[in-house]
Amino acid sequence: MLNFALMGAGRIGKMHAKNIVMHSKCNLSYIFDINQDLANEVAKQNKVNVVQSAEEAINDKDVDVVFIASATPTHVDFITMAAKAGKAIFCEKPIDLDIEKVNKCFETIKDFDVPIQIGFNRRYDNSHKALKLAKDSGEIGNLEMIVITSRDPEPPGIAYLQAAGGFFRDTTIHDFDLSRFILGDDPIIEISAYGSQLISDECKEVGDQDTAMFIMRSQKDVLIHINNSRRAVYGYDQRLEIFGSKGMMISNNQSPTSVQRFNNVSTLASDPIHFFFIERYDQAYKDELDEFVDIVIENKKPTVTFEDGRNALILANAAYESFNTGKSVNVNYK
Amino acid sequence: MLNFALMGAGRIGKMHAKNIVMHSKCNLSYIFDINQDLANEVAKQNKVNVVQSAEEAINDKDVDVVFIASATPTHVDFITMAAKAGKAIFCEKPIDLDIEKVNKCFETIKDFDVPIQIGFNRRYDNSHKALKLAKDSGEIGNLEMIVITSRDPEPPGIAYLQAAGGFFRDTTIHDFDLSRFILGDDPIIEISAYGSQLISDECKEVGDQDTAMFIMRSQKDVLIHINNSRRAVYGYDQRLEIFGSKGMMISNNQSPTSVQRFNNVSTLASDPIHFFFIERYDQAYKDELDEFVDIVIENKKPTVTFEDGRNALILANAAYESFNTGKSVNVNYK
Amino acid sequence: MLNFALMGAGRIGKMHAKNIVMHSKCNLSYIFDINQDLANEVAKQNKVNVVQSAEEAINDKDVDVVFIASATPTHVDFITMAAKAGKAIFCEKPIDLDIEKVNKCFETIKDFDVPIQIGFNRRYDNSHKALKLAKDSGEIGNLEMIVITSRDPEPPGIAYLQAAGGFFRDTTIHDFDLSRFILGDDPIIEISAYGSQLISDECKEVGDQDTAMFIMRSQKDVLIHINNSRRAVYGYDQRLEIFGSKGMMISNNQSPTSVQRFNNVSTLASDPIHFFFIERYDQAYKDELDEFVDIVIENKKPTVTFEDGRNALILANAAYESFNTGKSVNVNYK
Amino acid sequence: MLNFALMGAGRIGKMHAKNIVMHSKCNLSYIFDINQDLANEVAKQNKVNVVQSAEEAINDKDVDVVFIASATPTHVDFITMAAKAGKAIFCEKPIDLDIEKVNKCFETIKDFDVPIQIGFNRRYDNSHKALKLAKDSGEIGNLEMIVITSRDPEPPGIAYLQAAGGFFRDTTIHDFDLSRFILGDDPIIEISAYGSQLISDECKEVGDQDTAMFIMRSQKDVLIHINNSRRAVYGYDQRLEIFGSKGMMISNNQSPTSVQRFNNVSTLASDPIHFFFIERYDQAYKDELDEFVDIVIENKKPTVTFEDGRNALILANAAYESFNTGKSVNVNYK
Repeated sequence: MLNFALMGAGRIGKMHAKNIVMHSKCNLSYIFDINQDLANEVAKQNKVNVVQSAEEAINDKDVDVVFIASATPTHVDFITMAAKAGKAIFCEKPIDLDIEKVNKCFETIKDFDVPIQIGFNRRYDNSHKALKLAKDSGEIGNLEMIVITSRDPEPPGIAYLQAAGGFFRDTTIHDFDLSRFILGDDPIIEISAYGSQLISDECKEVGDQDTAMFIMRSQKDVLIHINNSRRAVYGYDQRLEIFGSKGMMISNNQSPTSVQRFNNVSTLASDPIHFFFIERYDQAYKDELDEFVDIVIENKKPTVTFEDGRNALILANAAYESFNTGKSVNVNYK
Repeated sequence: MLNFALMGAGRIGKMHAKNIVMHSKCNLSYIFDINQDLANEVAKQNKVNVVQSAEEAINDKDVDVVFIASATPTHVDFITMAAKAGKAIFCEKPIDLDIEKVNKCFETIKDFDVPIQIGFNRRYDNSHKALKLAKDSGEIGNLEMIVITSRDPEPPGIAYLQAAGGFFRDTTIHDFDLSRFILGDDPIIEISAYGSQLISDECKEVGDQDTAMFIMRSQKDVLIHINNSRRAVYGYDQRLEIFGSKGMMISNNQSPTSVQRFNNVSTLASDPIHFFFIERYDQAYKDELDEFVDIVIENKKPTVTFEDGRNALILANAAYESFNTGKSVNVNYK
Repeated sequence: MLNFALMGAGRIGKMHAKNIVMHSKCNLSYIFDINQDLANEVAKQNKVNVVQSAEEAINDKDVDVVFIASATPTHVDFITMAAKAGKAIFCEKPIDLDIEKVNKCFETIKDFDVPIQIGFNRRYDNSHKALKLAKDSGEIGNLEMIVITSRDPEPPGIAYLQAAGGFFRDTTIHDFDLSRFILGDDPIIEISAYGSQLISDECKEVGDQDTAMFIMRSQKDVLIHINNSRRAVYGYDQRLEIFGSKGMMISNNQSPTSVQRFNNVSTLASDPIHFFFIERYDQAYKDELDEFVDIVIENKKPTVTFEDGRNALILANAAYESFNTGKSVNVNYK
Repeated sequence: MLNFALMGAGRIGKMHAKNIVMHSKCNLSYIFDINQDLANEVAKQNKVNVVQSAEEAINDKDVDVVFIASATPTHVDFITMAAKAGKAIFCEKPIDLDIEKVNKCFETIKDFDVPIQIGFNRRYDNSHKALKLAKDSGEIGNLEMIVITSRDPEPPGIAYLQAAGGFFRDTTIHDFDLSRFILGDDPIIEISAYGSQLISDECKEVGDQDTAMFIMRSQKDVLIHINNSRRAVYGYDQRLEIFGSKGMMISNNQSPTSVQRFNNVSTLASDPIHFFFIERYDQAYKDELDEFVDIVIENKKPTVTFEDGRNALILANAAYESFNTGKSVNVNYK
């Protein structure tokens, strides 16, 4: 039985709280959020005590795991605190928006040798994972292209946008990681980025893009395309396609029902796809937790590492460089 | 080059005329229809001469093939005339609505030994045919069930209904033949039929059913279901499903486009399926003609025989007996 | 918080136990099974105490709900016991295999006036339910046909078959209920049944069918087709189709992934559908429990009544009469 | 009745010959090809006379239309010859590989004022066209992204590759035109191109790419992605997706059958999609001819203009500039 201290009681913290409580090998000991009301609400739902300070929870000797689902600017502090306290760490993406802070964090914690796993949930989706397995098993032959479509249902509010670090670091970072997940040991070495402001006045106000397209090249000359939007009226559009010498595989969208309508206007009309990540990646979040619990208990190596979190951020930064210079940028992982 | 005399210039005659004219080994010599206007129209479109009498065309020594696409009551006369003239015969289904007339016709023509092929077009549809091939090759293992959905887009007018011989002989006859096509040498031995009057006042007026369901049993205990309707607002619904010990295959509906729509109401919404048989079975009608031309030129045996036409009618008659008596009827092919 | 006494710790009891434990308003107080090992196993998984006798659990004054998921022959006894103890009752289908016992049970319990709900889980599947809603809202116009495909992945063992009461009462009973669910207040008045022994030697040994087809007619002349098999190698085939004057709706099969494969042999190849009812109706079982909890707490009327359980059995019996006599049978609900 | 002189009797000339012969308003008067054997073969199939020189055919006073489906380097000469002879011209894409020659050709012919139409066949595909109509009607709201997947089934031989002018001018040119078709009066102003050599030794030998990805931006900030491959083992992959503020539409792949297979390995497995352009765009090629015939007879303006052919080439050239410099290139249409 692992005792968890959960940092963050927002939308995603709330979801993690529920999964932790339902997991047969987990006990949720503490919830912390600077927003006391949020913390109280989640605590009440899950019959857990709220703590007044993150330190208190993180340093409690009975706590085994610090689970960080708070706002991005708090991540590095909580990671550092947890590492020093010798706790296993799960941290939502991104580690931080500033690569210097990420690097410094890594230097600080590396000697404490605690397991740390980054929350790139899509790696745990059964359909995306099937493509990774097929690529690794040779089923699609030599990998030649990856195409990722990733569109949110609706743009966030301005408060979120102001703290999000830009579209590429907030959203595309998932797709950078998903590309890296499929590629395995073939690194992405080059990137071009395009962005547009077409949808959201709030995005424009904070100087952010709401529509974006990317091309990347791996060392083995695989070409990767990503397209992103802050708004898809038909739901959370999440598609992954891999193409190789022996065939293609698509991890397509999913709908909560299997209803098909036929009338004088259209046929095969299905219900809208899942609304957003909570619904779409429900299975993935549960399996992500399950694997992490197994890693901690069995003393295994994390599968989504600090390095993975860092590299995805480096790609986002390179994307911004390309966007700002109008050049194809060589990615520097140093 | 085969010279054709075409009987009938209605909807289906018109379509056959076009296919014959376009076929590289066919020459359309004559068109006959008791409705001179129809005949003239089709003749004009295809630059062919109209004849005043069927006899004249059928007995012309240069005519090789009599192609019968006229009203059902004329079929037996034209078949007999053509057989006596030694011509190859293609006859649209059904041969006749009266099994006695069919039997007598068979007796009359059997000694003339001309090739005669019946127009069960669905056997030539590439998708339906793929299921037959899979069944024969063992791909689905031991055949256990057949399910046929066959629904017209809209009910015909009262004139058509009065001459059609009833829903089971006019429409279901195709599905009886399709069942026999899949089953091969395993005969249908038992049938139950249900019908309803739900759609068309004209159907009610002539005492006909517009909605129907059937179960049949083959000698090897395969169970077969057919359902029919005179009206499907989404188009001509033509589905064939075969189910066996190693799997299932579906020959599904087809649409003229591959468009899919995604919006806030529905996803994957496709255009309506083909409107009716002319569009849906376009490929089948062409291949049906092509095979028949090959049979005549190469002196091969017809693949859809007079016997097939007779047996489908016997099943329709047995269906009516079941419908009228409320009993499961044993089919007597004698 | 409702306290549950669960009867039965087999495959389905185990699943219900888990759902009850996870439900925020339920407490699982007792598990009983004549097979102590099964009971102990499920009890251990859910940290619940096993009881030695059903009576003890059912009559405990703190127990609010008796949840019956034990073998069919025990249902009537447990229902009666629970009704006399004044408990709310949930009972898996079928109530009993013998209509006389069912009727007697009804007479016995009717004066105790406890809520009793029957476990026809398919009514709670979101996709099937969407069809019911569309039918009721008029979206498909006047209902004309229902087509149900319901095939198990593999035949059960001989012990199960010996106690199951025959294919129609064990399996088709779900489809009879699903038909009744869609039809609403339009009763089924006529039925024809066909069966075959094609798959399972064990079925043959107990004199049971393993392949079956049915046609039914409702009072308003809707025609209904059901087909069943004890084995579909591609998984648990569960399809519901409703057809009316304004269109058609299909509740189609569901797969655990959304993977599509394209290679030189085939395209759009998806992963197999869900294996069996536990996976396929996971959402339905949870919502079924959720609604029942709401009924008990809010003192509402059960939505799937004892009468529903009785009527589905009457249809199964009528189906056997048709199968044995080769006649279309008028259904007598008296 | 229009009399056609057809230049070119290769794969695509052969197909056009058949369509011209079958068209009710067309007469195929001449076929010319420098390869006499090819010319003779197509002439024989279509009962047409071969001519020894293009001039002879083009200048025949009875010829109304010069239809150019010969090798690319001959296009400009034949266009010029035909314009001077006052004939209507249909020319397969690309006009030429050299923008200077294209510009000079335009200068030469502009005063002759003959109708000239360029063969961008995809504009005539009913599914692609439905997306254009939906975009224009406002059905998908404000256009935000276009995604084009366009992959050939197999790489061509070295002879073809040596004359083809490079992957972007030979293949992507279709997708550049398709993007322009959807965008309408919103010009593409910026482009980035990536290419890889992953598939074909012959491509490598001639220094060409066989795998490519592009991003483009329109004046209204619509982002466009194209991906291309010289080999897709599952057939000719042709997908067009448009995405806007009110929804998304996909023109998806098409298969010659509607067969779906279900077994213990996979479900919904369909037959491979169409092999290549002759099969996939059969309907488009026929409608393209049909519209052109209408334009000539009715004296209408061509819908796919010389300017369209020129602009697609300019985009291909800009793509090469981006590929060679690693920069995002501003497109200059002057």
